[in-house]
Amino acid sequence: MTYKDKHLKLFSLNSNLELAQKISDNSGIPLGKISSKQFSDGEIQINIEESVRGYDIFIIQSTSYPVNTYLWELLIMIDACKRASANSVNVVMPYYGYARQDRTASPREPITAKLVANMLTEAGADRILTLDLHAVQVQGFFDIPADNLFTVPLFAEYYRAKGLAGDGVVVVAPKNSGIKRARSLAEYLESPIAIVDYADDDQQRENGYVIGDVKDKHVILIDDILNTGKTFSSAAAIVRDAGAKEVYAVSSHGLFTPGAAARLDAADIKEVLVTDSVKTETPKPAAVQYLSAAPLLAHAIIRIHENKPVSPLFNYNKSAD
Amino acid sequence: MTYKDKHLKLFSLNSNLELAQKISDNSGIPLGKISSKQFSDGEIQINIEESVRGYDIFIIQSTSYPVNTYLWELLIMIDACKRASANSVNVVMPYYGYARQDRTASPREPITAKLVANMLTEAGADRILTLDLHAVQVQGFFDIPADNLFTVPLFAEYYRAKGLAGDGVVVVAPKNSGIKRARSLAEYLESPIAIVDYADDDQQRENGYVIGDVKDKHVILIDDILNTGKTFSSAAAIVRDAGAKEVYAVSSHGLFTPGAAARLDAADIKEVLVTDSVKTETPKPAAVQYLSAAPLLAHAIIRIHENKPVSPLFNYNKSAD
Amino acid sequence: MTYKDKHLKLFSLNSNLELAQKISDNSGIPLGKISSKQFSDGEIQINIEESVRGYDIFIIQSTSYPVNTYLWELLIMIDACKRASANSVNVVMPYYGYARQDRTASPREPITAKLVANMLTEAGADRILTLDLHAVQVQGFFDIPADNLFTVPLFAEYYRAKGLAGDGVVVVAPKNSGIKRARSLAEYLESPIAIVDYADDDQQRENGYVIGDVKDKHVILIDDILNTGKTFSSAAAIVRDAGAKEVYAVSSHGLFTPGAAARLDAADIKEVLVTDSVKTETPKPAAVQYLSAAPLLAHAIIRIHENKPVSPLFNYNKSAD
Amino acid sequence: MTYKDKHLKLFSLNSNLELAQKISDNSGIPLGKISSKQFSDGEIQINIEESVRGYDIFIIQSTSYPVNTYLWELLIMIDACKRASANSVNVVMPYYGYARQDRTASPREPITAKLVANMLTEAGADRILTLDLHAVQVQGFFDIPADNLFTVPLFAEYYRAKGLAGDGVVVVAPKNSGIKRARSLAEYLESPIAIVDYADDDQQRENGYVIGDVKDKHVILIDDILNTGKTFSSAAAIVRDAGAKEVYAVSSHGLFTPGAAARLDAADIKEVLVTDSVKTETPKPAAVQYLSAAPLLAHAIIRIHENKPVSPLFNYNKSAD
Amino acid sequence: MTYKDKHLKLFSLNSNLELAQKISDNSGIPLGKISSKQFSDGEIQINIEESVRGYDIFIIQSTSYPVNTYLWELLIMIDACKRASANSVNVVMPYYGYARQDRTASPREPITAKLVANMLTEAGADRILTLDLHAVQVQGFFDIPADNLFTVPLFAEYYRAKGLAGDGVVVVAPKNSGIKRARSLAEYLESPIAIVDYADDDQQRENGYVIGDVKDKHVILIDDILNTGKTFSSAAAIVRDAGAKEVYAVSSHGLFTPGAAARLDAADIKEVLVTDSVKTETPKPAAVQYLSAAPLLAHAIIRIHENKPVSPLFNYNKSAD
Amino acid sequence: MTYKDKHLKLFSLNSNLELAQKISDNSGIPLGKISSKQFSDGEIQINIEESVRGYDIFIIQSTSYPVNTYLWELLIMIDACKRASANSVNVVMPYYGYARQDRTASPREPITAKLVANMLTEAGADRILTLDLHAVQVQGFFDIPADNLFTVPLFAEYYRAKGLAGDGVVVVAPKNSGIKRARSLAEYLESPIAIVDYADDDQQRENGYVIGDVKDKHVILIDDILNTGKTFSSAAAIVRDAGAKEVYAVSSHGLFTPGAAARLDAADIKEVLVTDSVKTETPKPAAVQYLSAAPLLAHAIIRIHENKPVSPLFNYNKSAD
Repeated sequence: MTYKDKHLKLFSLNSNLELAQKISDNSGIPLGKISSKQFSDGEIQINIEESVRGYDIFIIQSTSYPVNTYLWELLIMIDACKRASANSVNVVMPYYGYARQDRTASPREPITAKLVANMLTEAGADRILTLDLHAVQVQGFFDIPADNLFTVPLFAEYYRAKGLAGDGVVVVAPKNSGIKRARSLAEYLESPIAIVDYADDDQQRENGYVIGDVKDKHVILIDDILNTGKTFSSAAAIVRDAGAKEVYAVSSHGLFTPGAAARLDAADIKEVLVTDSVKTETPKPAAVQYLSAAPLLAHAIIRIHENKPVSPLFNYNKSAD
Repeated sequence: MTYKDKHLKLFSLNSNLELAQKISDNSGIPLGKISSKQFSDGEIQINIEESVRGYDIFIIQSTSYPVNTYLWELLIMIDACKRASANSVNVVMPYYGYARQDRTASPREPITAKLVANMLTEAGADRILTLDLHAVQVQGFFDIPADNLFTVPLFAEYYRAKGLAGDGVVVVAPKNSGIKRARSLAEYLESPIAIVDYADDDQQRENGYVIGDVKDKHVILIDDILNTGKTFSSAAAIVRDAGAKEVYAVSSHGLFTPGAAARLDAADIKEVLVTDSVKTETPKPAAVQYLSAAPLLAHAIIRIHENKPVSPLFNYNKSAD
Repeated sequence: MTYKDKHLKLFSLNSNLELAQKISDNSGIPLGKISSKQFSDGEIQINIEESVRGYDIFIIQSTSYPVNTYLWELLIMIDACKRASANSVNVVMPYYGYARQDRTASPREPITAKLVANMLTEAGADRILTLDLHAVQVQGFFDIPADNLFTVPLFAEYYRAKGLAGDGVVVVAPKNSGIKRARSLAEYLESPIAIVDYADDDQQRENGYVIGDVKDKHVILIDDILNTGKTFSSAAAIVRDAGAKEVYAVSSHGLFTPGAAARLDAADIKEVLVTDSVKTETPKPAAVQYLSAAPLLAHAIIRIHENKPVSPLFNYNKSAD
Repeated sequence: MTYKDKHLKLFSLNSNLELAQKISDNSGIPLGKISSKQFSDGEIQINIEESVRGYDIFIIQSTSYPVNTYLWELLIMIDACKRASANSVNVVMPYYGYARQDRTASPREPITAKLVANMLTEAGADRILTLDLHAVQVQGFFDIPADNLFTVPLFAEYYRAKGLAGDGVVVVAPKNSGIKRARSLAEYLESPIAIVDYADDDQQRENGYVIGDVKDKHVILIDDILNTGKTFSSAAAIVRDAGAKEVYAVSSHGLFTPGAAARLDAADIKEVLVTDSVKTETPKPAAVQYLSAAPLLAHAIIRIHENKPVSPLFNYNKSAD
Repeated sequence: MTYKDKHLKLFSLNSNLELAQKISDNSGIPLGKISSKQFSDGEIQINIEESVRGYDIFIIQSTSYPVNTYLWELLIMIDACKRASANSVNVVMPYYGYARQDRTASPREPITAKLVANMLTEAGADRILTLDLHAVQVQGFFDIPADNLFTVPLFAEYYRAKGLAGDGVVVVAPKNSGIKRARSLAEYLESPIAIVDYADDDQQRENGYVIGDVKDKHVILIDDILNTGKTFSSAAAIVRDAGAKEVYAVSSHGLFTPGAAARLDAADIKEVLVTDSVKTETPKPAAVQYLSAAPLLAHAIIRIHENKPVSPLFNYNKSAD
Repeated sequence: MTYKDKHLKLFSLNSNLELAQKISDNSGIPLGKISSKQFSDGEIQINIEESVRGYDIFIIQSTSYPVNTYLWELLIMIDACKRASANSVNVVMPYYGYARQDRTASPREPITAKLVANMLTEAGADRILTLDLHAVQVQGFFDIPADNLFTVPLFAEYYRAKGLAGDGVVVVAPKNSGIKRARSLAEYLESPIAIVDYADDDQQRENGYVIGDVKDKHVILIDDILNTGKTFSSAAAIVRDAGAKEVYAVSSHGLFTPGAAARLDAADIKEVLVTDSVKTETPKPAAVQYLSAAPLLAHAIIRIHENKPVSPLFNYNKSAD
């Protein structure tokens, strides 16, 4: 695929250059020249090494670990583009850091996900494109257009191709807040759902049990963020106790913080599926499988720039069945 | 209780004068004099009939049916207070209209709950106080302080006083999005939870079934907004089919749109518990029971004005057990 | 006339579909597909059923009765267009509800016409196009471009075509605040003016009398908003007492609130001329005559989109003489 | 009268030090120490010579000739107060320059009165206090509280004390846009009104005539701004031609641009009454009479600072009759 | 040079019509028709006499003496363009008035240079183009794109053409704050630098002496703003005392306030070089030499409009050597 | 010293707890309870463990290494305070990270110091208190009150106490941009100044030489930020070459990035004086001497809260002489 448009430029910051390159390859839009480095005192200096005046700029940055550094790198780049007279500044943020801090769970807590939205907007972002937000309401934290692409159709296609669909499969939310995502995948797979619930303390994951029936079924655990691996490893044990035959786990964003790989390796999970939204140097579980979100993001960027609706990308492509 | 502070005034608009009067009675703060009327062309004219200059103004308005009129009445009152040099304008909105439109569920949808937040802020509101928001993330739609009071502790106290607690009770989310609220009440009651799920089409409520075990149990169905009554009546039938002994229903906000009363009367629900956050002229089901949120709101107003933390109000008062 | 431009779309909300259709017919721009409905609890849900991404959107909505509902419908539509990445959102509001609340007439009154302007701007409107504002200063309530089209040239053309011009005609302001509008029509008709004044109490319309000479003249009463009909019926009686031969009445916006038709029928007015800026289900007086503002609005929309000056539309077309 | 409040400070800029001193004397609030000078290149430098940290600051500045300099002096002072941590910055602007540019009278005109409001607000003003605005709608150009004090009651008191009231007097609007102000004074004086109208061209003041009856009456011409004196001198001639016995002229703001004094001296006007809102070095007509607005402004400042309603100041004090 | 683009218009306000005409000649863009006049009360009225709807508007205005008037003229023009639907409003301000008030030098001082930036932005400016800002940090006072063109390369070219370069020349900062500008010119000329320092009081320019060696050298004094001429005349005397052979003075902006010419004539300065950024009616020194900034500004305007980088204009053109 | 005020609370974030404790000790205001931790994915979570409702909050945070993390910690804390209804949020930022990125030095560079100011303001800061800004113009990057405390008087007192003053001392700017700071210290010490200049390339510090006379003098090198130590070590060698007797170095902010200590130890500098504005774990040079800025900051906080002018703190206390 080739793509020529003199008014569009694509830049990648430092969080996930591999994904950025794949987006570039998929869209046919070359990555712009830029230098972004950190001084010994931690300050970031960005030099955009080609003109952006009058262009629609798309900046690719997943705000994963180290989130604060990558967020500032992004804010500084937005500022630089705006002052250099970019026509529009579009932020492609496949992983939205701080998305879980989306409400004041206890008194005097910040709502950092909103703060991030405010900072991006105030710095000069004109649009945000992201992938499987932790809570869909975070879209409403923005007053600029915010497109949230879904990963569940990608996962559904993948599992159907493997034959994992229908009544033999149960899609399980590994904690009760994930029920909507489980419901969505289940509909694509035409499978039932179940929930792992923790009676006493959801945070501590004690006394867990399954609501629903997983006995002798292939279980697919689904979550949005795979962080420490505790949610999946705990849920895997619980569904196994409840008679599950085989356990798969799928998550949009694989952070794999230190310890996660070992924890998941110890759990009896056949495959841990994630997208490449996050690049991390930490160890990965042996059963990890990456599914690239680059084609989806590349299509979205092109459709946005060509003023075509993004909505067709939300549809599930059944042709893979 | 008496309350004297020269710098605080409480006004009620037209949506729920009874609740406002109860808040006034509970707080000892008299309701300020105001005239708000509609002309024959539908335009609202407000006259504040006492000085607000330099006062902290609390305006009580539930934005229930007719929501558009009550929202404009609120916006106009905020504008009037601000222009008349109120020190601060605090909106007490026990029922937050349009709260369910909190995300773009399908392409090109507005996020009206955010629009409401933006309009209130732009009109001049300095703070919002509300009750059991549909999604807690809506707090993050505001950059002004937004306190969201919880009703579940009130309900828990009420049910424990009735002896409805422990293993003989199952708290049931009548659709999967309500699982967090069910979990919260279940913790207070030390009861298990279950979920009513609709496999094919959540909107149409077809092919519903229970995930979890309700057989021979007292079921409490819990939701935040009781609107047409369809969610409760459908769930009641499903849990009965699954063997439930007795069905209770509880909801923070009782809108009871036309037809709801008949529908709930037809369902075999022993009691429909709601707070008085919404006043409506429509018929109520025979089994309706109102629990006043006025003491909670009155305490919050006083604590806010006295610069005391509101957080103690979030705690469950076990003394009623 | 045909009009083809891929970057312009025209949508009508629910207040005046007939006018919107005429604007569409006059401009050759089809009306876009949209669904806007109210739920049983009064909440409005809008679905824009075609892409608006990158288009200049023109939304037609007169904010007449029920003004609060139509204003919210408009705000929600603006929000939806902005989030769906419209290039610009242009509000065509032939009748500007709340325009008369343009100052604090008594202490602690809101300035609701300014509040409306602030809400439209904050929701995301980029431009407003309106017709014969109650006070021209309301233009200054906006910082976005606001074009105010004049109806007096239309009326002048109409009356000249009927032979109502020159010294045999007196243009009469039915209350003293309308003198500017009367002066404007009088200049087009080359006729003198007079004023109906109320010595004791302008609101109550008692003890009215004519300043100026109407004896044996054809009188044209002119006002901007015809609401209850009281201003015209009272002024008609007064000018008749002062010897007027025949009385015509003309008003840009015919609200005709309940009772207006009967009141005007009882007054001895030969013809009540209004534009079609407002659609209302209430009875109309027998002598009503509608003059469409659609050609004027259609031309303005096209000129705005083509970046041509709107000012030629302000000129009076003498070709009808 | 003495006034002690540690949290209020009053400063005068350079446009009208005499009025500022009178306001200080009337309120008992001393004028704060400040130096404001212009360099040889025209730039203004302000040094506030006492602390304003935490105080409510009232800045007195009429934006009369040279209006651009006095406006910048005001903006700079607001900026200085805000940066020096004033608690609030209150602008007392007895004469509001550019108030007549309140609408786009012809294509591509600015709305400079709105621009002034925006500049004051953006610079950091928290409130505005002004006197007899050219159009009351200009209040709505602000979203900060804007109090507009009326001069008509002062004038009414003055004329009644002179015996100029009742049927022997006619209050005349010297051009049709001034009819509201004439009506207001007439009500206080219990006198009829009339209007000077210019059939062909209001700007050129040609072919003027009186609508209404002034024969053998004492005429009081009333306007808000006395600028070149042309409006009054022309109207005086017209009412005399129509048989008026004696002509008085009254205006809130006496700008007296060069030539005005001679023009008014040539007109047969018995007395030209103005407030001291504007200080000007230009010649005044022999018949000029100044009525101080300082007591009214002083009362307003004190009431605002003490959080008492300003509305009582709008009332006419009949005790002088 | 010819330049045709239907979407760009150039207007000049009244501060420097000659420079505007030269920019027009250099760019091939004609000056748009506009009338801007002052009334006898000092108010400015602007009429833009051709359509600006949809155009990128460039407004040329140096905010030199009388700075307050020229600033308001500029703000009013911006407001007019914005309300008349200009696509963008670009301010070309070769001389930035109030630029020296860029910090709070003593307590409770305003930062007027920031206030100017805020006023321009709030009025509606989308971009600013200026020339040799007093402090480069003033760029950061804007959040809109702000391009600051450099004059030092122009000066360097001029002096090299005269043979003034190399070791025989010393570039001298006439006060210590100017060292950066001296350093920059010195690099282009490959000459050393020196500084005139005032030990006791920089403001009073007493006890000055040279730091560095000027003995038997050609001295070029460089400053950004030539205002009263005191800085240059004082520095000239000091460098002469220190043995300088010949003294040149160069400054980007020649304000020449009254007295400056005589002062500079009295000082033994061979040539006073300035750009034509400022037009002033005051006397000029006999040795004045003007170097036009019009070609530089014309190129910048065209590059901005054509979305080409402005950065090449920052480079020194050695071809003149 | 004791300090009791119920409406003031002081919190320290994690960058410099020692300084915060000293400020607390000096002011008598205890440090509030707060928990701020980082999760394994780098996200910061803050819990304010006491009520802030209605209080003036002062947050102490130097944005030194790791600057991005400490900036986000600060932004999140501001957000938390604002949502928890703090009366005001005052940021005490003794070291302002990114302050050197205060202009676009080359094309398409950001102005990150302005971005930081915008982010702090948008997050909700009401005031900023900082110490010896890199460029005083950065104050103007804020529209909220920004107090910049000076360290030069502290240093002057220190050196005078050591006998380092008068003609035997030369204060040397180690690069030409530091001349203002050198001039300021020199005035306090009644000593002359000199400058280290780099002819070819200021960034590379090659071919440096001294402008001015340092022969046989005690040299005090002064800079604002001591980062890598290169500026000081290079300048020390140059002034020694030029005959300086003894070299002292003083800097407000001691970052001491890795390698700085060794570099400074190798340079022949008798003492390296810094304030405790920055806490760093990196090695310090043997000759380091810390002078606490805590008393100055403590006084400023108290004066701000008590609405007393901060300006007296800018004065040099000669009592130490």
